[in-house]
Amino acid sequence: MQEYDIVIIGQGPAGLSAAIYTARAGMKTLVLGCDPKVAGEYDIDNYFGFPEAISGKELIGRGAAQAGRFGAVLRCDQALAVHFGDDGAYIVKTASGEYRGRALVLATGVSRKKPGISNIDEYEGKGVSYCVSCDGFFFKGARVMVAGEGVFAANQALELKEYTPDVAICTLGKKPDIGPEYLRRLELAGIEIIEKKIESLRGEGRLEAARFDDGAIREVRGLFIALGDASSLDFAYSLGVITRGVFIETDTEQKTNVPGVFAAGDCTGRYLQISVAVGEGAVAARSAIAYVREARQGAP
Amino acid sequence: MQEYDIVIIGQGPAGLSAAIYTARAGMKTLVLGCDPKVAGEYDIDNYFGFPEAISGKELIGRGAAQAGRFGAVLRCDQALAVHFGDDGAYIVKTASGEYRGRALVLATGVSRKKPGISNIDEYEGKGVSYCVSCDGFFFKGARVMVAGEGVFAANQALELKEYTPDVAICTLGKKPDIGPEYLRRLELAGIEIIEKKIESLRGEGRLEAARFDDGAIREVRGLFIALGDASSLDFAYSLGVITRGVFIETDTEQKTNVPGVFAAGDCTGRYLQISVAVGEGAVAARSAIAYVREARQGAP
Repeated sequence: MQEYDIVIIGQGPAGLSAAIYTARAGMKTLVLGCDPKVAGEYDIDNYFGFPEAISGKELIGRGAAQAGRFGAVLRCDQALAVHFGDDGAYIVKTASGEYRGRALVLATGVSRKKPGISNIDEYEGKGVSYCVSCDGFFFKGARVMVAGEGVFAANQALELKEYTPDVAICTLGKKPDIGPEYLRRLELAGIEIIEKKIESLRGEGRLEAARFDDGAIREVRGLFIALGDASSLDFAYSLGVITRGVFIETDTEQKTNVPGVFAAGDCTGRYLQISVAVGEGAVAARSAIAYVREARQGAP
Repeated sequence: MQEYDIVIIGQGPAGLSAAIYTARAGMKTLVLGCDPKVAGEYDIDNYFGFPEAISGKELIGRGAAQAGRFGAVLRCDQALAVHFGDDGAYIVKTASGEYRGRALVLATGVSRKKPGISNIDEYEGKGVSYCVSCDGFFFKGARVMVAGEGVFAANQALELKEYTPDVAICTLGKKPDIGPEYLRRLELAGIEIIEKKIESLRGEGRLEAARFDDGAIREVRGLFIALGDASSLDFAYSLGVITRGVFIETDTEQKTNVPGVFAAGDCTGRYLQISVAVGEGAVAARSAIAYVREARQGAP
């Protein structure tokens, strides 16, 4: 497993700004992610320093080059899950491997994905969950389903197999975007992929079944939401980081409640602007650098 | 008097970033200041978006052009004092005029100037003051002196004349940098300029005299410190904005305790980095815009 001082999840302005600072300070830095949302074609005209509007794509490219120049390793690799290592470090599992980081900066932006299931709110905490590593334990031996179309959903489903043999994936009507390797692993694990939409959930006070849009009903005790890519919010859930709606709670030093875990940019919900993400990235970097240095001094 | 929605004091990264946002939102915006500290020749390599290091001067030039493009008025004019207007607005007095703003953003950077007077700390609050509009009243008819070499000191001395006839300026051994117009006003007001250093202060429990480096002693009851240019801290003092050492206290929305007064950048002491100043400027702008809009709706 590759070891880093600081693993940053997210290659948008917050993550790259943090990487510029951590790498420049001599920290071994890994930045995971690919195609950040901001890297679209729309023009940015309110980020200080660019009197001619600049495309998100070009700005990200410039920031990535800058972080790379200081020695940060940028990898186009999707983070799927984060776990506590047994030595106080963090393990980040990606689509293609695992990395260890002494400190972690969450900076994937904000995810506003909500599954379009009519009465899902009624069942939150009553069978509907957003975090396998938090809640999987409560579904030992039960029939469960993961809602999602990507590698993130596939990984969640595979993790659920540690708790129960009866796991399926429902893509909510989308085409699976899972890739051959994960498809094979799902097949080996006996995880069925259902390409239907879920119309509604059923159950007296607790989730008992899902009704698909073709009228079919599947009995399930648990439904784990894992739409699109894993986001900072998903990682926060699995580490016990305090959240506020879809946002991660930090103090003014960008520290979360979990030592060694920092968050920056849109995922903190302060003001969804590149200017602010860049500033928060710098502050998160400072906090992460201080944390790693202290951890080193504390080590035997 | 020229009227603006938002007056920003400081043309560094925080002030210009704020101006980009306020002007872009249709707010009539004035940015006061000249030659920000960052506009030196040293290269900046950790501000996201510039993989080749950029000089402070060039970066500021780019940001100024950007703010101007959205309609912000940039004026190379030194802010000297800030007062409450009688209609809830703020009056900013400069070396060349007065401006009214509904909201105010303090963004002059941080001032670490300290007069080199050996025992000055003993007399803080006992004759030594940093704010004429706060403390001038307590020196009615007393002999006072202003320590400083610039137009800021000259303006403080002229303000003190409203309380007492016996006002002098001590440049602390520097050459006066006051300009012909203010020199004439000082002369008309009978304010002497003393070009000596102050070696120490004297007085039993309260300031009674200053001893110059040539051994001469001048009896004074008040010594007002006004070195260099007026800073955010000086304006904060005069408006009753809460400070913490040399820094201005703000919440995470960059609001100070005084409604309509916001602060951003180094003067808030969060992390003295351009990245952070730019982010804070954007947040201060958002808060100021909301404040002005509410004030408009509240108006008859």
